[in-house]
Amino acid sequence: MAQLISDRRDIDFVLHEQLGLVEDELFAEFNKKTVDLIVSEARNLAIKEILPTQKPGDEEGCVLEDGKVTVPECFKRPWKLYCEGEWLAMCDDPEVGGQGMPKLVGLAANEYLVGANPSFMLYSGMTHGAAKLVEEFGTDEQKALYMEKMFSGEWGGTMLLTEPEAGSDVGALTSTATLNEDGTYSIKGTKIFISAGEHDLVDNIIHPVLARIEGSPEGTKGISLFLVPKYFVNKDGSLGDFNNVVCTGIEEKMGIHGNATCTLTLGEKGESIGTLLGEVNKGMPEMFRMMNEARAFVGLQAFGVATASYMYALDYARTRVQGRNMVSGREPGAKNVPIIQHPDVRRQLLNMKSLVEGMRSLLYLNAKCADLKATATSDEDREKYSDLIEVLTPIVKGYVTDKALEVCSHGVQVFGGYGYIKELPVEQLMRDSRIFMIYEGTNGIQAMDLLGRKLAMKKGKSFGYFLEMMADTVKEAKATEGVEALALKVEAAMEKYTSTAEIIGKRARSSEVLNAYSFAHPFLEITGDLTMAWMLLWRACVAAPKLAKKAGGLDPEVVAAKAGKNKDAAYYAGQIQTAAFFINTLLPSALAKMDAIAEADTSVEDMHEASFGSK
Amino acid sequence: MAQLISDRRDIDFVLHEQLGLVEDELFAEFNKKTVDLIVSEARNLAIKEILPTQKPGDEEGCVLEDGKVTVPECFKRPWKLYCEGEWLAMCDDPEVGGQGMPKLVGLAANEYLVGANPSFMLYSGMTHGAAKLVEEFGTDEQKALYMEKMFSGEWGGTMLLTEPEAGSDVGALTSTATLNEDGTYSIKGTKIFISAGEHDLVDNIIHPVLARIEGSPEGTKGISLFLVPKYFVNKDGSLGDFNNVVCTGIEEKMGIHGNATCTLTLGEKGESIGTLLGEVNKGMPEMFRMMNEARAFVGLQAFGVATASYMYALDYARTRVQGRNMVSGREPGAKNVPIIQHPDVRRQLLNMKSLVEGMRSLLYLNAKCADLKATATSDEDREKYSDLIEVLTPIVKGYVTDKALEVCSHGVQVFGGYGYIKELPVEQLMRDSRIFMIYEGTNGIQAMDLLGRKLAMKKGKSFGYFLEMMADTVKEAKATEGVEALALKVEAAMEKYTSTAEIIGKRARSSEVLNAYSFAHPFLEITGDLTMAWMLLWRACVAAPKLAKKAGGLDPEVVAAKAGKNKDAAYYAGQIQTAAFFINTLLPSALAKMDAIAEADTSVEDMHEASFGSK
Repeated sequence: MAQLISDRRDIDFVLHEQLGLVEDELFAEFNKKTVDLIVSEARNLAIKEILPTQKPGDEEGCVLEDGKVTVPECFKRPWKLYCEGEWLAMCDDPEVGGQGMPKLVGLAANEYLVGANPSFMLYSGMTHGAAKLVEEFGTDEQKALYMEKMFSGEWGGTMLLTEPEAGSDVGALTSTATLNEDGTYSIKGTKIFISAGEHDLVDNIIHPVLARIEGSPEGTKGISLFLVPKYFVNKDGSLGDFNNVVCTGIEEKMGIHGNATCTLTLGEKGESIGTLLGEVNKGMPEMFRMMNEARAFVGLQAFGVATASYMYALDYARTRVQGRNMVSGREPGAKNVPIIQHPDVRRQLLNMKSLVEGMRSLLYLNAKCADLKATATSDEDREKYSDLIEVLTPIVKGYVTDKALEVCSHGVQVFGGYGYIKELPVEQLMRDSRIFMIYEGTNGIQAMDLLGRKLAMKKGKSFGYFLEMMADTVKEAKATEGVEALALKVEAAMEKYTSTAEIIGKRARSSEVLNAYSFAHPFLEITGDLTMAWMLLWRACVAAPKLAKKAGGLDPEVVAAKAGKNKDAAYYAGQIQTAAFFINTLLPSALAKMDAIAEADTSVEDMHEASFGSK
Repeated sequence: MAQLISDRRDIDFVLHEQLGLVEDELFAEFNKKTVDLIVSEARNLAIKEILPTQKPGDEEGCVLEDGKVTVPECFKRPWKLYCEGEWLAMCDDPEVGGQGMPKLVGLAANEYLVGANPSFMLYSGMTHGAAKLVEEFGTDEQKALYMEKMFSGEWGGTMLLTEPEAGSDVGALTSTATLNEDGTYSIKGTKIFISAGEHDLVDNIIHPVLARIEGSPEGTKGISLFLVPKYFVNKDGSLGDFNNVVCTGIEEKMGIHGNATCTLTLGEKGESIGTLLGEVNKGMPEMFRMMNEARAFVGLQAFGVATASYMYALDYARTRVQGRNMVSGREPGAKNVPIIQHPDVRRQLLNMKSLVEGMRSLLYLNAKCADLKATATSDEDREKYSDLIEVLTPIVKGYVTDKALEVCSHGVQVFGGYGYIKELPVEQLMRDSRIFMIYEGTNGIQAMDLLGRKLAMKKGKSFGYFLEMMADTVKEAKATEGVEALALKVEAAMEKYTSTAEIIGKRARSSEVLNAYSFAHPFLEITGDLTMAWMLLWRACVAAPKLAKKAGGLDPEVVAAKAGKNKDAAYYAGQIQTAAFFINTLLPSALAKMDAIAEADTSVEDMHEASFGSK
């Protein structure tokens, strides 16, 4: 099995050709050479050290004994190397121990790292999210105690949010915090589904915990955020007593076995003491400040397994010989051929490719927006990129994770019977991928966020940035030889989409709110599909003139002949064909969904509960 | 967790109201009362004895030791009861030990049995298929030796087809058969992915084996079928020596852990002796005679897990309290509600329901065609129903298994985080469901079968029966109050489909064959989607007049009020709403796919292999 989990040529295309990475002097030190080096180093670490842990991590899983969780032994060496390489805080401020990389570069590195083993990298992702909370809201004392050791990966972090009766409905949580005389809080409660909640990769784990201070209001408005360390930390940084955050169970799951999903009790077997992080009753908005980043990370996880699945399937299709070519195979003496020659296999591969590459561009664009926001020199620009991230986030999390499962399922199918067995990597990727649609806000929640918050945000101004940016690409593509026809189709789709968005947006603010929300997920689907069309058109628009130069024209026969000889020509030709495939073959279904949204069938809201079926 | 894995009300509707089971006097002894009794007995066996083995079967899996496979211990008691109840041959001729039930009734029973544990029932399915081969092609001696004990489940059966280098390309197989002086054959070769290939539920296993007699032509034309028992059988029925069919490995798989997927070697460690089954070099057509039944069984397995997943999700959505109602929850003091009140959950449930019920009707119709074929009194009728089965089979296998995965994935999503953990049943159902798209001919093969063989069969006559039957439903629906508008939409879709089928059918016989086959799977998808719309329209057409009678009219408010009080009214109202949901919300995407097929984008065929990505 080839060890390609990502396509470096395509990563470089997005970084340097599509998104034009280095255009801001604030990132001047990250020139092409430096970026190439970083990505290559990440790839080496990913392929050589982390990827070999993916399968054993799945097989061994995590083990809970006497409240202690041990991760697969093979995780320990790559964790050490990962921390030593300072990858965890690669995009963070040098002042907190980070390397100050642009997020766009960090994403390219993370694509390899996460794709190699999403369970492994979830320990890092949780830690980074918690460290950012400390950085953002911590007192000087809290920062001094925890922050550096979290950003370095010496200690871990988590997010203690979900409770048995409070999943998507966070406001229903029942964990309590009682103020002590010394200003600390005694925390009591049970938290479930805590990723990386307890494990032995690190010496200490710092838990941000959502709980209600006694007397605070009900619902989300009465929730505060606390820092509760697994072991107390003395002022000199040494570890003190156990803080009674007890792991009472870990989940057996469909996948991501290498990451411990824990049930943690606080204040049950002795006191659990925490300090307030940020302000009283502001736990929810504080946590939401980190939400976009957390959701982008889930989208990246999903994308990581999708690209890996595609690369494995492509490699298999090129090497697995089975059956004859449908046309040339009719000739006497024809030999069996690699299955990539069979139309249905090609269709599946192109389906995977169009989604994987569209998702890559989307994720990188999202990261670039974060960079542009961070380096913006005007409030207007800062607001613009901030708003773009708001709009892109539910697509990055909701659409990408939906499609990653689809890609991984295609990956299994390309392998046939071999796809279903554990000997080969694609079945695990599919199992792993299924969680991403659920955690960090289910995709139903993402769809509600897009329709209910993002579409209406600032009276549509934020959404306007998103559509404007898309329109810019369409305009450029209309003037680019070789992609004009595709541009017109995307333009038409965009117009239909805009009117659909208006219709459903209005409905969401009317008495037909239930109807509108019954189409929230289809609305997310069409938004994502259109975004893919946009990304692929953009790619084609960049590739077409380069292809014309390489091949000496865009005539299909000339291009085909050149593609067999010249790698760049093959790559650029593939960009145009991939866009054509998606826009001509897959995008029409999105247009039909737009019609269905406008038609607004009422069955979903009308159905009596008894009509759904027998009890 | 409720133990509903199927909806009895809906089964009864299909049997007695939609398909009008008992209309042929040849099945006169199976009156409604008898049928009800049979289905209830199957349900009891399924729920009480087989369902409890589903989870342990997944956890324990099968174990190979010294060439012997042991199945999960808990399988043994239900297998005994299943055999004692004579369920294995319930639809077979009493002369071979069967019970002579209509296949339609058998399907209703099997829906429960298979849905309770598809891994368990695969032992039965494989045995039944092999027994049918003996019944159909066996000599008197072969029948006397094997048949009765296979139909009773005392011995098992398999199908030894796949080899490491010959999966979908069966003609490439390399197993050999050498004629011995006594008329038997020595068989040599390695077979992989053999479901139920070796296990301890039975005393003996009779393997139908595909192999090439030395000197036979290459490809599929030189393949013969042999019966190779695990243990020789003496003339008195007692077991003789081991026949050296050696299990050298079992697969670790994504799901269906309870069924052993074996690698078997023949003639490696001592001779393996078989007898010719049927005629020399006719192995492929002989096996194909059983193919429709085998593929229908896979469709049933997929449907079985889909209905189970829906019933679990529905039960969960009705009982899991989380969040407030989007409308009434705004009032002060509003309480949290069951999640079935949330629009996105309802949408997912209705998505599942429409597919599950559409698939149920399709599968039952397919079984009814087999009954009508068996009891036909004219050659014309016999041909008609035989042709209908030919056309329906790739839909039953290909479309139903694709959609079962989709349904099972929705099932996981409705459960949220609880859907991903092994404690609850839906994650296993999703893992189990993924194999059905692969085995017994991948869905790519099903799509090719539909486009390449079934569409063109008898110059379109066979396909014509399928469209005529659909047109009959549309005609009736157009004249039925309450479903006229839906009927018109299905009629329009049917017209568009017919012209799409003509276009792609012509293309498949032209020089554009590669393009046509690159749309083979989308063609299967639109065929299936249209079939679902047909089935659901048919249901609505039956339900509407009954609802009007129960509720005293079809006015939405009257119906809604009645649905809360009367179970039948709720059920019938649900039938119309489910049809409306599918036809108004999901069918439009199929129409768009038809457009895309007609437009015939050439990217899939044009892409140079190098353009798919880096090596």
